[in-house]
Amino acid sequence: MGQYIAPLRDMQFVLHELLNVEAEFKAIPDFESLDADTINSIAEEAAKFTQNVTYPLNQSGDSEGCHHDKVSGVVTAPKGFKEAYAQYVEAGWPALACDTEYGGQGLPECINNVLYEMLNSANQAWTMYPGLTHGAYAALLQHGTDELKKAYLPKIVSGQWTGTMCLTEAHCGTDLGMLRSKAEPLGDGSYSISGQKIFISAGEHDLAENIIHLVLARLPDAPAGTKGISLFVVPKYVPNADGTVGERNGVKCGSIEHKMGIHGNATCVINLDGAKGWLVGEPNKGLNAMFVMMNGARLGVGMQSLGLAEVAYQNSLVYAKDRIQMRSLTGPKAKDKPADPIIVHPDVRRMLLTQKAYVEAARAFTYWTGLMIDKSHHHPDEKVRKEMDELVALLTPIVKGFITENSYVSTTYGMQVFGGHGYIKEWGMEQYVRDARINMIYEGTNGIQALDLLGRKVLGDMGAKLMKFGRIVTDFIKAESGNEAMKEFTGPLAEIGTEVQKVTMEVGQKAMKNADEVGAASVPYMHLVGHFVFAYLWARMAKLGLENEGDFYKTKVATARFYYAKLLPETATHLKQIRAGADTLMALDAANF
Amino acid sequence: MGQYIAPLRDMQFVLHELLNVEAEFKAIPDFESLDADTINSIAEEAAKFTQNVTYPLNQSGDSEGCHHDKVSGVVTAPKGFKEAYAQYVEAGWPALACDTEYGGQGLPECINNVLYEMLNSANQAWTMYPGLTHGAYAALLQHGTDELKKAYLPKIVSGQWTGTMCLTEAHCGTDLGMLRSKAEPLGDGSYSISGQKIFISAGEHDLAENIIHLVLARLPDAPAGTKGISLFVVPKYVPNADGTVGERNGVKCGSIEHKMGIHGNATCVINLDGAKGWLVGEPNKGLNAMFVMMNGARLGVGMQSLGLAEVAYQNSLVYAKDRIQMRSLTGPKAKDKPADPIIVHPDVRRMLLTQKAYVEAARAFTYWTGLMIDKSHHHPDEKVRKEMDELVALLTPIVKGFITENSYVSTTYGMQVFGGHGYIKEWGMEQYVRDARINMIYEGTNGIQALDLLGRKVLGDMGAKLMKFGRIVTDFIKAESGNEAMKEFTGPLAEIGTEVQKVTMEVGQKAMKNADEVGAASVPYMHLVGHFVFAYLWARMAKLGLENEGDFYKTKVATARFYYAKLLPETATHLKQIRAGADTLMALDAANF
Repeated sequence: MGQYIAPLRDMQFVLHELLNVEAEFKAIPDFESLDADTINSIAEEAAKFTQNVTYPLNQSGDSEGCHHDKVSGVVTAPKGFKEAYAQYVEAGWPALACDTEYGGQGLPECINNVLYEMLNSANQAWTMYPGLTHGAYAALLQHGTDELKKAYLPKIVSGQWTGTMCLTEAHCGTDLGMLRSKAEPLGDGSYSISGQKIFISAGEHDLAENIIHLVLARLPDAPAGTKGISLFVVPKYVPNADGTVGERNGVKCGSIEHKMGIHGNATCVINLDGAKGWLVGEPNKGLNAMFVMMNGARLGVGMQSLGLAEVAYQNSLVYAKDRIQMRSLTGPKAKDKPADPIIVHPDVRRMLLTQKAYVEAARAFTYWTGLMIDKSHHHPDEKVRKEMDELVALLTPIVKGFITENSYVSTTYGMQVFGGHGYIKEWGMEQYVRDARINMIYEGTNGIQALDLLGRKVLGDMGAKLMKFGRIVTDFIKAESGNEAMKEFTGPLAEIGTEVQKVTMEVGQKAMKNADEVGAASVPYMHLVGHFVFAYLWARMAKLGLENEGDFYKTKVATARFYYAKLLPETATHLKQIRAGADTLMALDAANF
Repeated sequence: MGQYIAPLRDMQFVLHELLNVEAEFKAIPDFESLDADTINSIAEEAAKFTQNVTYPLNQSGDSEGCHHDKVSGVVTAPKGFKEAYAQYVEAGWPALACDTEYGGQGLPECINNVLYEMLNSANQAWTMYPGLTHGAYAALLQHGTDELKKAYLPKIVSGQWTGTMCLTEAHCGTDLGMLRSKAEPLGDGSYSISGQKIFISAGEHDLAENIIHLVLARLPDAPAGTKGISLFVVPKYVPNADGTVGERNGVKCGSIEHKMGIHGNATCVINLDGAKGWLVGEPNKGLNAMFVMMNGARLGVGMQSLGLAEVAYQNSLVYAKDRIQMRSLTGPKAKDKPADPIIVHPDVRRMLLTQKAYVEAARAFTYWTGLMIDKSHHHPDEKVRKEMDELVALLTPIVKGFITENSYVSTTYGMQVFGGHGYIKEWGMEQYVRDARINMIYEGTNGIQALDLLGRKVLGDMGAKLMKFGRIVTDFIKAESGNEAMKEFTGPLAEIGTEVQKVTMEVGQKAMKNADEVGAASVPYMHLVGHFVFAYLWARMAKLGLENEGDFYKTKVATARFYYAKLLPETATHLKQIRAGADTLMALDAANF
């Protein structure tokens, strides 16, 4: 039951009309020959793959789950996952945004995001197998020695081998400074690594011939805390010099978790028992190297939630047009039927439009962030690279935290449109909620994202990065100052910008006296700034809607109006919550809760 | 893993201090001898039963689920459910709030709510077996003939037989006017009933020797729509004259649903194949009779969500005190440990206090509503009975809609406090979210509750019932007008009251021109009025907190302050959403979504 049809027209709208990626790519030598036709062809092929290959495995993967053989430690993914992955590798998808030096296709991250939206709409659990691999690729590319790169990257780029991130231990998730896994040098440049990691997504499976773990551990005599953590590459099978897989390494799956959702992805306890590993980056600076993966993963989680919100929206829309129940409050609409389709009811429309407005803004936001990442890595002008890098640093926790919160609301609404039929497994709607729920937790809980945003990214540089973003918005508002038709958007956009600026200064001042004010303000602040970003993007989409003819564009304007009327007002609450400060949160002793 | 400890002290606070139930019961002859000791003893016994008998079956019931034998139609509940139910019946719990004429203990609904909060905290799926029975009891008591009452009520009251509500059919849930099940008179006063019902909770199981279905169906030549629906009692086994069970009736379970949660309760497709039934109430007026059950069930769903939010809160609180991770932003607190317990972090406190403030307000609200129901049925003064009846009518959709929304947020926060450990089944936190999710859907989706509130209960009588509630609040504010310490609460409470009044008039005026304005405003309006109720109750609890000594009371004041600072501001958004009206919702043609 259910459907997934890749929203190609909407994707093209964001790429070619909103972001104007062709013009952007023209200014970047690495991408200058990339034209709209090529981009659209890639998207069309990705649509076919996801619609026909991985989407049909989504519900079956959820009900079957993964299998773990306790004796051998072998993990088997749900039926069909391995074959789908073989097709994915065969078609060259893993290489899409990888360096041509290692066999990649050298395409922009922005275009990779288009692929990943579709992959996640079709099957988040399946997508995590290749998805985490891309993070391992990025960490090795940036911090690995030439030898390590040569040994691992071609196989990772081709997708023959997959990757994992082994950070969490039972007693430390957020607080990596407490981690205990150990790495003893073996004298030959390799290390013997021991410890236990938990919650390792795609930690063990039967999709690929080898799994490359990136593991945080402590060297002997390493300083305590986060300054004594190093990063190691620990392969399931040690590669031979000829690129084939060699001896089985001492890294085994001890068990897999039974979870609320993403059943098709194996979440593993990984036991390292004198496993052979090689240092990535400098000793005791593992967290720096790991953050390359982590930032990529955070953006990836935003993409997961975009994907789920899109597919949930599509299905609830189909149902709302089809399901007949009650008459419109303003009189019968489908007079030939015993009742009206439920899309006539204002509150059903509220739930549909909430999903639509969030999904489309999230798409614009994530593709735009992808483009900024591409410019930060590939733009010929160093000033642009630096500027983009700073914007990406500011926006990453918003992509992760704000989009995942909205998508939980969206998928919950998608279910609600189905009424009782949404609660049963048959229609697939409840799975989207269960899958979306993890996105608010992993790769740093949303509370951590909010602290990163407000504490580090905003207050950490006295608002410099935030002002850079603010300038983009004010430039847009100024450019539209003579445009009467845009006033309904630019007016409230300017207001929310002013409020963000004011409240940021207020929190900054309070924080100087009491650091808890940062933690107290952080989550509503993340929502506030998230809405500031979405309001900007909806204003820009509305402008395109106003400038062009046809229903597609009229719908953009109508959705922007809905967003400004019904969703942006959430900031009225966030502002009050931020300004209410830390006192009522900190008043009680723990014993009196 | 996990725990449930019935919050007896908090329950006593609501009953004896906030609601002062002893004084209220003294004015009602049916309950005049009921004293605090008796009430407290009942609560203590209920705590023992739920903590020791049904709570231990909650996780196992979820993972095992129900079993349906396709050939025989026999449904078996999870291991231990039947034995727990036998103990429940043995202890006389089903009879608690039932009429003494049929073997009941004649206790107030308000006290039954105390029992049901605990039952639902311990195990919502299990609780639905006895829970739905109480609805069947109420419908038969009010609308059944003496003969039917004699035949069914004693067995229902004792719990030997359970009950169901058979309303929904595949093509109609909300829109019962479309239902197709038929009832043909057999000439002997009974009817032959045929049709298929879906989503029948506790529709078939092995807990009781007989199941009494209350079924909506159409008589021959019944008018179309809701005016042609009648209610029938259809027993699984036709009772013999001596009270034993007789012949197996033509009502069978065709299948059970696979659902997101409440796995321990069998959600059945019920096939009626010439099943013998008897009319309850008047022909074609079945919906009136059914609404007796339905209103009870709606309040019952509010109790379910209160129960889940309480147990989720308890567990996340234990975890937040125990789990150490990172240092407080203001410097180490647990200096003897490698990190601080996460309850030091402001955002963890925000999540805990949100749960706490919602749970305690919901407890006060539901127990108070229970007391109003008791007065509406038993108070000697007809004027009081009528007044209470009107208030209950107003508040029922708020109990159902507002509490279930908050509890979904609360259980989601409970999970979030656990981080990754919340997502795995082991700790039990994700089950509370999955179970809580149905409460926003069944017994009338929350969209329907909101329409019932705004369209029928508020605008339907030009705000008369709402003004009755408003008078209770303004009387309280007036009484406290000289109380300086209460100003921080009574000031904002008066403001929100004024806003409710203003915005109700605005919507009423717009609705006269466009009925869709009611549907457009309804859900944010339900939240707005829900907060008005909660703000009133938190002000009253704060007053008790200020008037008494000790940590327990200080905590009440602190929680009230948190509620006013951080949760009541949600109404700033609701007001804007309501005032934004229907235009942006209705602008798009369905084809352009």
